[in-house]
Amino acid sequence: MSAALDFWFDFASTYSYPAAVRMAALAAHADVRVRFRPFLLGPIFKAQGWTTSPFNLYPEKGRYMWRDLERLCADLDVPFQRPDPFPQNSLLAARVALAGLDQSWGEAFCVAAFRAQFGDGRRIDDAAVIGDLIARLRIDPQPVLAAAGSDAIKQRLRAQTDEAQRLGLFGAPSFVTADGELFWGNDRLEAALRWATRSRAGSSQ
Amino acid sequence: MSAALDFWFDFASTYSYPAAVRMAALAAHADVRVRFRPFLLGPIFKAQGWTTSPFNLYPEKGRYMWRDLERLCADLDVPFQRPDPFPQNSLLAARVALAGLDQSWGEAFCVAAFRAQFGDGRRIDDAAVIGDLIARLRIDPQPVLAAAGSDAIKQRLRAQTDEAQRLGLFGAPSFVTADGELFWGNDRLEAALRWATRSRAGSSQ
Repeated sequence: MSAALDFWFDFASTYSYPAAVRMAALAAHADVRVRFRPFLLGPIFKAQGWTTSPFNLYPEKGRYMWRDLERLCADLDVPFQRPDPFPQNSLLAARVALAGLDQSWGEAFCVAAFRAQFGDGRRIDDAAVIGDLIARLRIDPQPVLAAAGSDAIKQRLRAQTDEAQRLGLFGAPSFVTADGELFWGNDRLEAALRWATRSRAGSSQ
Repeated sequence: MSAALDFWFDFASTYSYPAAVRMAALAAHADVRVRFRPFLLGPIFKAQGWTTSPFNLYPEKGRYMWRDLERLCADLDVPFQRPDPFPQNSLLAARVALAGLDQSWGEAFCVAAFRAQFGDGRRIDDAAVIGDLIARLRIDPQPVLAAAGSDAIKQRLRAQTDEAQRLGLFGAPSFVTADGELFWGNDRLEAALRWATRSRAGSSQ
């Protein structure tokens, strides 16, 4: 049986971009089954008294982050552009992702939405952009966008965000193993996969 | 000629502990000459409106950090104890380190002070503890503690902290290469060493 890992992310989260791009190959190599769990950081930041990204509130940290992300993307050989505005409203992308994750194309959509925003400088709060990303996956965008606006999906995204808050998540990307171990940040992805694999080894004894 | 890297840290900084412990072997392996640069995070945090560590201000982030540090130390096979109180006053340790870095025992003292605090649960604001750490390096503590209280050393620590602020440092550990590239966090140490090595290769062409 594969080990399991939950991958929590917000589409506006900068370091979730390299994590999403790296996920498929690393998870396959580690034989870990990863569940993509989009949520909204906004309510969590608000609970900490932040009205925007901490990278905007603390300009020196923000300046560093953009340079660091640029270097990371160069090392990964993936395109990078600083999104404008930042942070983008990630609500629509998160709802569409939830619709897609019920079907086979959800993970591909997530990676495509991250690349569109942080690689190609496109706006993920624009329904035309999101529709285009869906169409490139050879899926008809109209029923998906309709589903993304349904009460059922809205409710699921709220529940997902509530669960993130209950888990004590304070940033993204975050990774949670089946035995409840939390890892935060793109640079903890390898450690999270190792932990997931280790707990599988333990549980099979 | 060896490449150069500045290692900026505050003795109260949690993730500076694994960075300090790992430094010697990694720097030697990369053939990078590392300069230890203790400074005080307090004035920098204060400029951001923080009166204590952000790990105290944001309890969920703090809870995560302690667990993360515990895991990191277990992976490195170094002892870990959560210091009480946290953060500790790092002024005395920083002044003694500056005195020691003029001589041959400064780096060994820095590693010993981190281990004492985060490995053995000792208080680094206690002159008796700091004196003991100096004595274990086979150095007479009294003249060192006297030098650490001199105006010259006080002034140098202030200048060091001013320079950190001018460089835009916002946390520790931070690593700055000779060509001005900034890397933040224990998990960027390897990348900083790679960058330092790369710029050396470039400059010799």
